[in-house]
Amino acid sequence: MPFELTILGSSSATPTYNRHPTAQVLNIRERFFLIDCGEGTQTQLVRYRLKYNRIGHIFISHLHGDHYLGLMGLISTMHLQGRTNELHIFGQQELMDIIELQLRLSNTILRYQLIFHPIKNFSGTLIHEDDDLTVRTIVLNHRIPCTGFLFKEKPKPRKLLINKMQHFSIPFNYFAGIKNGDDYEDDFGNIIKNQELTISSGNPRSYAFCSDTIYDEQLADEVRGVDLLYHESTFMHDLVDRAKATFHSTTIEAATIAQKAEVRKLIIGHFSARYKDLNPLLIEARTVFKNTDLALEGMKFEVAEKHH
Amino acid sequence: MPFELTILGSSSATPTYNRHPTAQVLNIRERFFLIDCGEGTQTQLVRYRLKYNRIGHIFISHLHGDHYLGLMGLISTMHLQGRTNELHIFGQQELMDIIELQLRLSNTILRYQLIFHPIKNFSGTLIHEDDDLTVRTIVLNHRIPCTGFLFKEKPKPRKLLINKMQHFSIPFNYFAGIKNGDDYEDDFGNIIKNQELTISSGNPRSYAFCSDTIYDEQLADEVRGVDLLYHESTFMHDLVDRAKATFHSTTIEAATIAQKAEVRKLIIGHFSARYKDLNPLLIEARTVFKNTDLALEGMKFEVAEKHH
Repeated sequence: MPFELTILGSSSATPTYNRHPTAQVLNIRERFFLIDCGEGTQTQLVRYRLKYNRIGHIFISHLHGDHYLGLMGLISTMHLQGRTNELHIFGQQELMDIIELQLRLSNTILRYQLIFHPIKNFSGTLIHEDDDLTVRTIVLNHRIPCTGFLFKEKPKPRKLLINKMQHFSIPFNYFAGIKNGDDYEDDFGNIIKNQELTISSGNPRSYAFCSDTIYDEQLADEVRGVDLLYHESTFMHDLVDRAKATFHSTTIEAATIAQKAEVRKLIIGHFSARYKDLNPLLIEARTVFKNTDLALEGMKFEVAEKHH
Repeated sequence: MPFELTILGSSSATPTYNRHPTAQVLNIRERFFLIDCGEGTQTQLVRYRLKYNRIGHIFISHLHGDHYLGLMGLISTMHLQGRTNELHIFGQQELMDIIELQLRLSNTILRYQLIFHPIKNFSGTLIHEDDDLTVRTIVLNHRIPCTGFLFKEKPKPRKLLINKMQHFSIPFNYFAGIKNGDDYEDDFGNIIKNQELTISSGNPRSYAFCSDTIYDEQLADEVRGVDLLYHESTFMHDLVDRAKATFHSTTIEAATIAQKAEVRKLIIGHFSARYKDLNPLLIEARTVFKNTDLALEGMKFEVAEKHH
């Protein structure tokens, strides 16, 4: 089952011709989540053949234009294309004011239900849950209220080894308990350990999205051990003072968070328009955290299932 | 002196990968006017090497997203790039509500002065004037209030023929009057006609922008005799009923307005996303009005000076 992130854009506010402002699509077991929605996101979705109507949930980190100005066009296009399934949007309460004002002035009555979920600025709040996953908030430290998102699969029941079920003649009514980790005791009082009867269905996978933030060590605790971490890296480290002044981070700072949090993989993005060549940023980040990649438009990051 | 229109986008609301929503730049004697500003306009400006800061005035026809959703990003980018010169925006009063709300929520204090000019929905209102030109409103007939714009050069003084001034020994203090069309009477009472002493500096050139509108014969009076007319043509004429229902126009209808108004040239745009190949639209429009072209991204339409 997929757990895959596609980068639609990763540039910071000033537009450059070949890059796009922040937007990502996360596919968790064929559920599609759009994370941030900078100007032009709908065109990027078309370019990478991601169907609008498969997106059920949109998460907006904050109200700087490069993170949400594509939302209104996307909402409108979904309407024009006859969407009927619900659309859930998560963001600061005021985002709904922006949406409502523009729907009203364009005299648009949406054909589908738009359900808005206001985000309060607390960390670790469960804002979305379904059978497969949870989404919790991560409070970031930026010039205006800004929220990251932690996507986490739920643990799945273990898989029965059918040949073992047959070998020990285990009755069907024990199967559910064994899937959930129970050992089995046969008629003679022998205990057969769960590990001998099942295999793991894969460890829950996780992704943490940290859009715009100043370097903040506390963040390492919030994203501890995730499989994939996106952390902004607007500047190279020689501009660390400018990063602080603008509440952004450097390559070294992003990599330090990844290292302290012991994540499996880091991707950096939100690059300042001053960098034509992004390789120096990658090289610098890797001096601190080796398993780092650039979030470039069109790149996909798959988190493999981990069996043990 | 240039009078040149550059098309940045001409697609209707549903985005297609290769086309862009409505936006145009009109260069009149090195003053740059942006007309409508669909999503992605700032990227299109970069693509066609039009400098943001040369744009002093922006005109927004109406509050459907495909005509203004790129405005907020452009305003913000001008700010980030350190603009200091004034920016004038013309649009429905409520457009300013949309701008103000988003500036406030992103905590942005613009470094330059944004001067908003609300448009009342009357036709022929003079909304902008400088030494070289006037801009007046054209009321269009769409689902929500919608305004077209008529750009018109001011007449320029005639040019003196210096050899004639010498030949007739005309004193300097007569020059201003002769530039404005006066004849000259010499010491012997001979009248020398102005046409013999001057040439035209070119007739005033004009451009009429009619974005979204149902077919409306009255429009022909408002755009009578313009050099260049942009008239939307969302559909081919077999879909005339759909055009009426959605308050849009067909190729034949746009061309009929051009013909009745006796304009010099027509360009059609705002094409429905259903048309992959736009040539049939052009061919159909030309059956009614021969001097028609498609408004395609990147195309430039120059209005030559007319001397006589």
